[in-house]
Order: sequence, then structure tokens, then C-alpha cells
Amino acid sequence: MHAIKDIIEMAIREDIGPGDITTDNLIPDENQGKGIILAKESLILAGLRVAQQVFSYLDPEIRFDSPYRDGDEISAGTTIMEVSGSLKTLLKGERTALNFLQRLSGIATHVRSYITLIKDLPVRLVDTRKTTPGLRTLEKYAVRMGGASNHRMGLYDGVLIKDNHIAACGGIGIAVHTLRGMISHLVKIEVEVSDMVQVQEALAAKADVIMLDNMTVPQIREAVSRINGKAIVEVSGMVTKKDLRELAGTGVDIISAGALTHSAPSVDISMRIL
Amino acid sequence: MHAIKDIIEMAIREDIGPGDITTDNLIPDENQGKGIILAKESLILAGLRVAQQVFSYLDPEIRFDSPYRDGDEISAGTTIMEVSGSLKTLLKGERTALNFLQRLSGIATHVRSYITLIKDLPVRLVDTRKTTPGLRTLEKYAVRMGGASNHRMGLYDGVLIKDNHIAACGGIGIAVHTLRGMISHLVKIEVEVSDMVQVQEALAAKADVIMLDNMTVPQIREAVSRINGKAIVEVSGMVTKKDLRELAGTGVDIISAGALTHSAPSVDISMRIL
Amino acid sequence: MHAIKDIIEMAIREDIGPGDITTDNLIPDENQGKGIILAKESLILAGLRVAQQVFSYLDPEIRFDSPYRDGDEISAGTTIMEVSGSLKTLLKGERTALNFLQRLSGIATHVRSYITLIKDLPVRLVDTRKTTPGLRTLEKYAVRMGGASNHRMGLYDGVLIKDNHIAACGGIGIAVHTLRGMISHLVKIEVEVSDMVQVQEALAAKADVIMLDNMTVPQIREAVSRINGKAIVEVSGMVTKKDLRELAGTGVDIISAGALTHSAPSVDISMRIL
Amino acid sequence: MHAIKDIIEMAIREDIGPGDITTDNLIPDENQGKGIILAKESLILAGLRVAQQVFSYLDPEIRFDSPYRDGDEISAGTTIMEVSGSLKTLLKGERTALNFLQRLSGIATHVRSYITLIKDLPVRLVDTRKTTPGLRTLEKYAVRMGGASNHRMGLYDGVLIKDNHIAACGGIGIAVHTLRGMISHLVKIEVEVSDMVQVQEALAAKADVIMLDNMTVPQIREAVSRINGKAIVEVSGMVTKKDLRELAGTGVDIISAGALTHSAPSVDISMRIL
Amino acid sequence: MHAIKDIIEMAIREDIGPGDITTDNLIPDENQGKGIILAKESLILAGLRVAQQVFSYLDPEIRFDSPYRDGDEISAGTTIMEVSGSLKTLLKGERTALNFLQRLSGIATHVRSYITLIKDLPVRLVDTRKTTPGLRTLEKYAVRMGGASNHRMGLYDGVLIKDNHIAACGGIGIAVHTLRGMISHLVKIEVEVSDMVQVQEALAAKADVIMLDNMTVPQIREAVSRINGKAIVEVSGMVTKKDLRELAGTGVDIISAGALTHSAPSVDISMRIL
Amino acid sequence: MHAIKDIIEMAIREDIGPGDITTDNLIPDENQGKGIILAKESLILAGLRVAQQVFSYLDPEIRFDSPYRDGDEISAGTTIMEVSGSLKTLLKGERTALNFLQRLSGIATHVRSYITLIKDLPVRLVDTRKTTPGLRTLEKYAVRMGGASNHRMGLYDGVLIKDNHIAACGGIGIAVHTLRGMISHLVKIEVEVSDMVQVQEALAAKADVIMLDNMTVPQIREAVSRINGKAIVEVSGMVTKKDLRELAGTGVDIISAGALTHSAPSVDISMRIL
Repeated sequence: MHAIKDIIEMAIREDIGPGDITTDNLIPDENQGKGIILAKESLILAGLRVAQQVFSYLDPEIRFDSPYRDGDEISAGTTIMEVSGSLKTLLKGERTALNFLQRLSGIATHVRSYITLIKDLPVRLVDTRKTTPGLRTLEKYAVRMGGASNHRMGLYDGVLIKDNHIAACGGIGIAVHTLRGMISHLVKIEVEVSDMVQVQEALAAKADVIMLDNMTVPQIREAVSRINGKAIVEVSGMVTKKDLRELAGTGVDIISAGALTHSAPSVDISMRIL
Repeated sequence: MHAIKDIIEMAIREDIGPGDITTDNLIPDENQGKGIILAKESLILAGLRVAQQVFSYLDPEIRFDSPYRDGDEISAGTTIMEVSGSLKTLLKGERTALNFLQRLSGIATHVRSYITLIKDLPVRLVDTRKTTPGLRTLEKYAVRMGGASNHRMGLYDGVLIKDNHIAACGGIGIAVHTLRGMISHLVKIEVEVSDMVQVQEALAAKADVIMLDNMTVPQIREAVSRINGKAIVEVSGMVTKKDLRELAGTGVDIISAGALTHSAPSVDISMRIL
Repeated sequence: MHAIKDIIEMAIREDIGPGDITTDNLIPDENQGKGIILAKESLILAGLRVAQQVFSYLDPEIRFDSPYRDGDEISAGTTIMEVSGSLKTLLKGERTALNFLQRLSGIATHVRSYITLIKDLPVRLVDTRKTTPGLRTLEKYAVRMGGASNHRMGLYDGVLIKDNHIAACGGIGIAVHTLRGMISHLVKIEVEVSDMVQVQEALAAKADVIMLDNMTVPQIREAVSRINGKAIVEVSGMVTKKDLRELAGTGVDIISAGALTHSAPSVDISMRIL
Repeated sequence: MHAIKDIIEMAIREDIGPGDITTDNLIPDENQGKGIILAKESLILAGLRVAQQVFSYLDPEIRFDSPYRDGDEISAGTTIMEVSGSLKTLLKGERTALNFLQRLSGIATHVRSYITLIKDLPVRLVDTRKTTPGLRTLEKYAVRMGGASNHRMGLYDGVLIKDNHIAACGGIGIAVHTLRGMISHLVKIEVEVSDMVQVQEALAAKADVIMLDNMTVPQIREAVSRINGKAIVEVSGMVTKKDLRELAGTGVDIISAGALTHSAPSVDISMRIL
Repeated sequence: MHAIKDIIEMAIREDIGPGDITTDNLIPDENQGKGIILAKESLILAGLRVAQQVFSYLDPEIRFDSPYRDGDEISAGTTIMEVSGSLKTLLKGERTALNFLQRLSGIATHVRSYITLIKDLPVRLVDTRKTTPGLRTLEKYAVRMGGASNHRMGLYDGVLIKDNHIAACGGIGIAVHTLRGMISHLVKIEVEVSDMVQVQEALAAKADVIMLDNMTVPQIREAVSRINGKAIVEVSGMVTKKDLRELAGTGVDIISAGALTHSAPSVDISMRIL
Repeated sequence: MHAIKDIIEMAIREDIGPGDITTDNLIPDENQGKGIILAKESLILAGLRVAQQVFSYLDPEIRFDSPYRDGDEISAGTTIMEVSGSLKTLLKGERTALNFLQRLSGIATHVRSYITLIKDLPVRLVDTRKTTPGLRTLEKYAVRMGGASNHRMGLYDGVLIKDNHIAACGGIGIAVHTLRGMISHLVKIEVEVSDMVQVQEALAAKADVIMLDNMTVPQIREAVSRINGKAIVEVSGMVTKKDLRELAGTGVDIISAGALTHSAPSVDISMRIL
């Protein structure tokens, strides 16, 4: 929530700077207006509240009216929201509000297209930390609105032991054991493994989650079979939409894909002022 | 420059929060390491210095070695940069540094693919304000590294009179005249027009730049012919790669395209620690 | 606008610090009061809204009543504004609100005395970047309220090529050409010149604005004649009130004077609490 | 000290914003330069360290060389300081550094001209809280460099009971007594009085300091004689240079004058880059 | 006041971070609730307004109802305050609000237990700068609510000359004299002394306050007798509750005790949501 | 880490404010000194690095020398660290550095006294969120230095379902199920229960951790036996040192105690400057 307020403030400052020299000089303070925010293509909505906060930050008197909620499917041509109040504020906040809305709805829409492919399967699709700097909290929210789930928020709310950690410690067993003593009992430990020997070590160390990194589908099947419910199994690596259903059928619990956030195109949303 | 420092700090805070609970508990302070930043696909580089600033923010002792500069074309498999110093810092800064580098190089690469199509023509391709909130300065820099140019940075360093401004003032002539008296003589005035009547009014008002909004190619040709060098001519609207060369051949001076920034996919760059 | 909020907050913090030990200990929370803000000398008003924001920052319930607007001429003894609400807030905000109002009205008043001398001539008087650190946006606003215009706001919204830039590049022509390719098409390029050879080079390079630096009146006349409308002409240097009319008669378009801001005395404004 | 860092950062941000578009595009990173900071008129120096901090904030490698210290008298034409390092930094920091130096030296010079008039008399000249918003700490420092002393820094480090406080409490006696119990024993209590009855009440209340507000010279003499060393005596009100010596001869301990800060003209200091 | 807003914001950020993952996911936005803040032991109340500000920071609509004021004695089992509004906000703000209230009331309660021992004696008990980092203003407020007084707030609002200062200057006389010329006439000068020779020097230098550091009771009595009202006398050092009354009987004016703040245990206060 | 930098900055600002008027006016810039930080009682060290950061924040040239590390047991009279450099910096940073060190070592020492009582038992003692506002990260670090472990850092890195959450959802089962779908798979779910029916429901819902709230020792034993390793068992409530060993003997996995942080007295540490 603070993260959101901070990025909104930063976005407004970078756009308006010392002043909107066009609007400040041409539009009288007292002029009122109404803006129609329009979906120019079909999309999954995410960021409605953030877009509102942009306008409210500039002027707490701005009013909003929308029949939709984040996560809703919106068809092309639909009015997403009406925004009413000072015309000056509408003009000054428009671009920043849309920049948030287009990007977050872009992610939700992109994510939904993945989810559709696997919604009948008992597997969970999650994002990664490959998010846009400064927008982590918002982009992970958009992922949820798209129907997928979140991996850890950052380096502070989940343990992921990678090869460099293992090398520095002297083994998976010692790494897991050391961490158990140091972290909160509410945080799980995940270990990234690249072969069956490491799978065995992670199991022996009682890792809560085992991440299979860049393995082939047959290797994944073997790993799932060996782990056999004793740990949550995640696959990671260059997950594409094409491979998604096959991966989902291997019996893994979780598939993580950076592409959910890092390469989602913006959707086209515009604002028309009446 | 402050914008850059601020977004780097925000990005690190959102990723590390109260601490990297894996690395802080497993890697001894004194361990040193070297990281190799690798291009996993061919790309135009942008953000090298920003990636360095991420590590330097965490630890001023980190050293960098790279034969490349932003704007360079890098082929798949190339080592972009070596990063040396405290292993802890390398692990903590890796994701944030890559998130910047992948996004900015993604934009530069995307822009370059547009530029290639029109580089023999006397026209300028420029970005818009459709940038990621908080990353305006950096994304506009990446656009330049890709070979295109920048439109105004924000609402403060250029005038763009749109239909709502015109309606509120009572006409293009009055809007331009009012602004001339209020703004710095170093800032130009651009007027967005949608038909020939408005083109004529903008010319009469001595607008410095005339933006043809969502006109057809024949309309654009006619407008260029009417304006005849008395103002800079910009076309805007849903510019796609497919239309780009045709638009560029109409004789306009400037083509602006939001797609340069808002829908550029990230390029794949990874870091391997030795 | 953010610049204004930031400086108001900084000003209040530096004055009140951990608390107003007199008022906090003597005035009951519930006491109400009304303050009369009085012009003790004749002045041009600037900063009314800022003064209000100081009180509103401390307490959003404070009410204001004033028949005046910034830019108005106020005679000595006039009540500029009434401020009503919590007596505590009136006492705590008084000095900071007045410090803004006295300084900004001081600038507007000072500027108006220059403008009066040349208002019949087709020349524009502008400020410089010689403003008080932290008050740039406000002081440039006060200049406009006084009737003059603004030069660029900072180093980011206008190009001014000086001798050091020219020396580093190898000439005026190359400097202007390089910049045309790098900056937004909405930003003009100004070149500072000190003799006729440089005037000629700047014209050849198609500079938008030529600044004649510390030239004599005959030299200025000659330069204006040579430039002959092909660029905007600005004169700069130690412009005094005494020389102003003579300079304005040379045919230049713009006269810039640091003295508008850097040496304007405050006007005397006080607040009396009823 | 934090106040100083904060205002320096704010000043640089307002001047450079997203970038110095002239210098960033024309001057190569590796170019070195040397700047000569010159007194264009005779002055009392104040702000040398602040000017250095502006450059150091931009680039910690900048080097400074000066034989002078704040408080020194500098004659016209003297080189105050040499600044060496990256040419880019010199050009970007120049204006902001000079804006601090011109204003602070302007205050010190102005203050010295007052001090000279009364330096043989046992009286102390002090400033007020009529300082430029955001520059309180620096301007009060400049006052000391000019040879005068400081009144309280803000509302937090000294008590000044005015008529409104007295009215709200029910009398001087009760106000002083209440405060004695609430504030630190290291902070003195000053009472503003406007006639002899109030002088008597303040004495009875054992005020540490009595401020005679807008009294005539004969009234001041009478008050000094009544107070007779039982409290420090301060005179305040529209103190002008013309009246200063007469006021100083009345036997008061302290004369406070807002004009020391609020109306000091900047002195002329420039930077020439070699 | 800003100090308070800043620490409240910091406290909320450290507790909620990117979100309260339990409450945000389980409690509907529209659910309302009422919380009862209960004293689980008898205590002196301090921090009621701060606790309110925590909730108000999260949601300005939260309402409060309490018959008590800071400084009141509250018996075990009493409802201190009712808090009503969004259930989500109540749950998210609860811990932070209580953390402030428990600590500040803990200090007030602890202080009151000291004050009770000496309330019939003409001596003042004061705190020190041994406060929790970031909570100085609040903890010193709690000390006043407990019935004791404050020493200086920080290094900026009172002078305390210690042995290192004396050694660096060359003597108490010179130190006091130098400072008199440099500081505001509203700030007193205190000198820390450790024997009778220094007491004599401090008297000769006309120190306003003399602090007897770690002296025995007979030494203190002798010092009080020597000083004989010519300066305020403070004793400092390891003041314990056991010694308090004896010290208070020596005739000193002020006793300072770090234990008032640095070792006050929290009192038990909880919130029950209906 | 940022949390630490922020609180250090806040602590220094609140102590020094606009300046240390004693030291700034008496100690020459060039004076060097050495400070000895002394344990005045036996203690467990915590905060050595933070104390160093306080001095380094003021002056990066300060040097430190210490044979100890946080977590070490230090006996009374021991020199903990030597601090060398500018005498001014030593005097200005002393109190703030000690305030951190005394409080954090106070917590570590207090925690160690609990740990000693149960170190032979297979149970984990953890802290709570009852920490000092602004010091959460540091106090939880001190708890680890004392030998205990941390519960979640805040509301963002662990789920704790309490009675209000259960009531709002309609049952433990539904609450756990809803959360599983919303949160990262690296975060565990804890449910607070107050009787055996709820224990059964939490088990049925597959809660990862079950917190027994304010149960008697026999009830705890029964719950442990029912849970029988199917979830981690935590006891909470008014845990005192007296009950600790008995609670630890019940077979629970985790005992949480707010008293570890909220009521730890500071230890006595001073600095002597040579």
C-alpha cells in the first residue's frame, strides 16, 4: 500500500514536474468535466483503484463511477469508468492514470491467456521476481487478477536456495539446516535443483519446496515420482505458452513463468473527455 | 539523474525489504565472487550504467568490466559485462540489475527494429508519454539508444494543445496566443488537429508544430502540402510497424509511436556467478 | 506543484521543529481566532495561495477570505486576507506564511516597477535562473504576477549553448547540429554570442534564439539588424532599471535580468490576530 | 546540517530536473576543467562550504582551493575559490552553487554594514525568523559571518510570549509561570511588551528577557531604567540603519532586525571556466 | 509534530510492508467493527492521540471515543478508548497503535512512580537524551505526562559544556565566554563539573546552570551551599529510585535521570474487537 | 537494511537538529580524538555495527577497532570498541550510538537470560511484533543475537489467522482454504486457537502451525498430543520467565514471548573520550 502511494507520487512528479504548462495556462480553475475511460480492445481489468488514486492524489474531490472490478473481463468498446470533476485535474492525471491501467490490465490479460490453457489441471501458475522496477506490488496484484498466483514478493518473505548458496555452504543439507535455525517458522524453504542427486539431497534435508530448474519433461516426471508428495514441486525455466499444458501434465504442483510480467504488452485503453 | 537514483532505491527496497533471508544467512561477508552478465538473445544494449548503479548502491566496492556501451548491438551468447566483488552483493543485486537491463535493452531493441525500416528517409521517429510509471527518464533514454528521438519529457517542457484545451479557450488562435505570453521563449507550441480547417487555424496562429491526429495517408499528404514548411509536422495515432514506411513517405517531419515504449518485450539477459 | 508542497513542508519543519513551545503550552486546543493579513506598504500581490497552503498544511480546517488575486495592486493599509480557525494554528503558521508572502510579493512588486518602464514597447522582460535555492517555481511564478515572463525553468526545458559548450564541441554549428538530433522537437535552441562573428555562426546554424551577452547598445543594434528576424534576439548581462528603456528600444525581442529575482527586497506584510 | 543537505538536494533537483540537456549532450564525460569563482564587487564571504557541497553532491571527485574562510572581507576582482574536475559537473553545478554563495554573502555583507555602525557599543544585533523559507539555518549562519548574532532558530528553542498568548492565558504572570513548569530549564522566557505596565508585569513574573515592541526612544530609555539589569532588554520593530546607532545608545542589550535577512540584496559573484 | 508523523509512518511501513496478507485476503472491505482498548494493569496514560493517529493514517474515517486524557491514572480493567470503523483497518493498525501506547504509557507510569516520592519537595525531576532512537519527541512527552520535566530536546536547544569541550577550549571560563557570543540569547549555558574547583570556575564564568556529575551527597550539599542561588544546580549520574529522596533533599534544583526513559517497562494494554 | 539506514538518519536528525550548538562552537574542525566504549555491566552484545553506522553517517572517516562481535558475552568493565577520528564527530554521535547499543544489547542480554533456562530442551523461543515502533528489524536482530528466534517480521511475511478473521470468514476451514489460494506457496499459515474444537478444525484445514492462545499447561499437553506432529505447535500468551521451563516441557515446538522485546531494560554502556 505504501509501495503503491510511492510509485503513484513518483509517476505524477515525473510527468507534471514543475507544472503542466499547457493546461495550467489555458483551463480555468473552475471548469468541470467528465472523462470516459474506454477499452479499445478486449481485456482483463486490473488497476482500476490505482487509476483512481492517481486522480485523487491530484485532487481529492474527483468522483468515479464504474460497474466493474479488477479481474473482470471487458469487451472492446466498453466504458470502464467515468471520472468527473475539475477539468484541469482530468487533463493532468489522464496519461499517468492510463499508463498504470494499460500496463496492469495488460499483465492481467496476458496471464489470463495462460490460465485458460490449464484451468482444468491441478497445477498452480505463479509469477517470478522479473517485474518492472518500482511496480512489484502492483504487477503481482495484476497477476492475481489474471488468475495466476504469486511466488514470493521479494528476497525477504521466502527462502530460495540456489547453486551459489549451496556452493558457499558446502551442501544442500547444511544450507537447509542453517536456515531453519535462522528464519521465522512461518517461512518455507525452497531449494533449486538441477539433477536427481540434488533432488535426493533436498528431500533428505526436508526442503519444503523443490524447484526443478531447466529440466526436460521426462526428467520432471521422474523427479515428481521420486519426490512423491514429500515436498511441493515447482518447475521453472523458459516456460512458454506452447509448453505450458505439457508441463502442467507432469504432475508438478507449481509452474513459474517470468514471462507473465516481463513481456506482457500493454492493452489499449483511452480516455475521452466530454 | 535524481529520477534514476530514486527508482533504483525504490526497486532495491521492494526486492530486499528488511533483508535477503537466504543470502544473509548463508553467505559469509568475506566471500568474493564474479558474475558474468550474458545476452541470451541478440539485442541493442541499454541500461549498462543503471545496472552498475544497482550494485554500487548496495556496495560501492563492486567493480565492473565491459567492452560495450549503451546503443551497441550485442549478439546472442555474448558476455555483456563482468561484475566482481562481495558475493553477497552480487546475489542481492542480481535480479534488480537484470530487471532494469532487460527492460531497457528490450525497448532499445524494439525501437531499433522500427528505425531500421526508415533510416534512409528524412523523418524522425519519436516516443510518447506512454511510459512505465517511474521509469520515464530511463525509458526515454533507451529510446535514444535504440536510435529514435524523444518527444517532450512531460507536461512541463513542451506545449501540446489538444481539443479540450481548444474548447475551453474558444479556439486555436486564442489558445496559442495566450500561451505565447505565459511560457518561456525556449519552449515550442504544438497543436493537435484533426482536419484541414484546424490545420489552417494552427498555421494562422503560428503554431511551431502541428500534430495530425489519426488522419489517413491521403489527408496527411494534403496537410503536409498545405503546411508547406511553415510548421513542423507530426503524425500520431496507432502507428504500427507495418504502416511505418508509408507514413514516413508522406513528407511529415515526425512520427510519434507509443508502442516504442509501452509494448516492448523484455530481452533475455541472465547473470551467471562463477 | 510538488516543488511547492516540498518547500512548504521544509519551511514549516525548520520553523516549528519538535514543537512551538510557547503556543503549545499556553493556548488551549479549542481556542478559535481570526487573523488579518495587512499590507504595510503598497505592493503587487503574489503568494496568496501559498500562504493559505501553509496554514492548511498545519490544519485543513482553516478558512480564508480575500477579495484579491495574485497580480493585484494593493495599497498600503489594505487587508489582504482574513484567516480564521484554531488560534494555535494561526500562531504557528503566521511567520512561515508571511515569509512566503513577503518574499513573493516583494518580487512581483519589484518586477512591476521594471515593467512599467517598458510596457509600451514590443519587448519581453524575462527572469533568469538566479533564484533562491528551493524557491525556483514560486519565484518564477511571482515574476509572472509582476508582469514579466519566464526564461527556462531549469537546465532541462531549454537549451542554452554557452562558450564552454562551444569550445568543447568545436564550434557553434556543430553544437547546434548535435543538439537538434538529441532533444525533443518542442525545445528551442539558444546560443550565447559575444561578437558579430558568432552572431553570423549562430544564424548559419539556425539557432532559434541568439543571446547577446554583455554587448554595448550600438553592438546590439547592429546584431539586431543582422539577425533581421531570422532568430529571436535576447540581451543579457548586467541589466539595470536605468538602462532598461534604452535596451528595450534597440529592437531586441527579449531582455533577461537576474535582478528581477535575486535582489528584490521583501515587502512589509504583517498579520494581526483579533 | 541535515537542513543544509536537504536544501542543496532540492536546489539541484529544481535546476537539473531530468537532466541538463545542453551539457549532457555536448560535453564528453572525460573532459576536465577548472572554474574560477570571482567576486565582482567587494563583499563579506559566506557560503563557501555550501557552494562546495553543491559540486560534491553532483560528483565527490571535485576539488576546491581557496585561501579564504567565511567571514572574510573580499575585495572586488578577487578570486574566491578555484574548482577543478569534470567539466560537466562544473557546468551543471555552477548556477546552484553561485545562487547559494551570492545570497549568503549578500546577507553577510549587508549585516556587516550594520555592525560597523555600532561595533564600539555594548549592544548585540540579532536577526529574526524573517528568513527565506528553507534557508533558515544557512541564513542565520550568514548573519553570524556578518558579525551579528542569532535570535532563536525557530519556535522550538526559545520562548517568546506575545500579546495573543497573554490574552489567551489571562496575563503575563500566569503565562510565564505556566511555561516555567513545561519547558526545559535550558530555555529562557522572553515576553513582548508594549508599555510600562507590561514591563512591570514581566519583571514581576521574572521573565528572562523583555522585548520592547515598537516603542519610542524615550520610552525605551525609561524601560531600560526600570528594568535595571533584572532582565535582558531587547528592542524590536522597524529597525533601520538610520536609527540603529541611536537605538544602540539607549542602553538596551539586544536589537533585533528582520531587515538583516529579508531584504539583503545578493552580491555579484560569477564563475569563469578556464 | 513532524517527528511524530514520520515515526508513525515508519512504524506502519515496517509492520504492514507490501500488505497484511491475512487480513487483506480474508476480511471484506465493507466489514465494520469496534475495538475496545483495555488497560490490563493500572497505569498512567500517554499516547492516546498517537494511537489514534496510527489508525487515522491508515483510514481517516476511523472514529474514537474516550473519556480519558494523557496523564490520567487508569486502573486495571478499564476501557481506555473505543475505536470504530473498517474492520480491516482495526486489524491492520492494532499492533502498531498498541506498541506506541504500551511504551509511552509505560514511561509515564514509570515516571509517576518516581514523582510520587518527591512531590512535596521543591525539586524538579528531568529526563535526559537517553531515549529510544526515533522516539525522542514522544518519549519526552510521556515524561511530562508522568509528571516530570524535560531537559533539552537535543544538541540544538541548550548548551551543555562537558569535560571534552573544556579541554579543547582551555577552560570553563573561555568556553562559556565563547558560547555567549555565538548562541541565541534565549538559550542557557550549563556546565558539567566534577569538583569544587570547577564549581568555582563555572560560577566565575556566570554559567546559567551547573551540573554536578557523579558527586556524593555531602559534596552536593557543599556545592549547593557554594553556588547559593547564583546558578541553577542540577545533579546527574546514576540516579536510582532508592536515592531519589535523599538527593532531592540536598537543595539542588534539578535531578536528571536517564532511567526515566531508557529502562521503563511497557505496560500491558490490549485491544479486543467486538 | 534500508530500515536501519532510515532509523539511524531519523535518530541523528532528532538529536542534532539544526546543529550541536555546544560542540560546533567550541571544538575546532581539526581536533582528533579517540573514544572508548565501555560495558558498565555484564551483557550480551548487539548493535556494534549500528553504533558504527551512526558515526560513519556523520563522517565516513571515523575508524573502529573491536575484538568483539554481536552475540558475544561481555563482562563488566570491558572495552567493547575504540572509535577514532574527528573529535567533533565523536561528541556529536556519542549519545545516538549509545542509545542504539544500550537498547539492542539490553534486548540481547534479556533474551539470553531466558534462553539459558531452556537450552537443553527441544523448543524454540521466539519474539512477537511487540517491538518499538521504527526499530522492528533491529530489535528482531538483537533477539537472534540473544539466542532466540524470530516470529514473522510483520503482517506481510506470514499468515496468522485470529478469531476476528475466523468470524468474518465463517470458520477456520474456509479461512485456511481461501488463503492457500491467495498467498505465495513459500508462506506458511498459522491459526490461533483457544480450545480443542478449534484445534481439531485447524488440523482438518491442514494449518501449517497451530498457536495455542492462553491455554493452561494441561490443555497444552492435550493439544500437543492431539496434534501429534501434524502441525507445528506454538504457545503464546503472558509467558513469564518463571513459567518458561514448564511450558517448554509440554512438548510444544515454539514459545512466543512479547516480553523479549517490549520490556527489556537497557544495559549500561558509556563512552569515554581520551
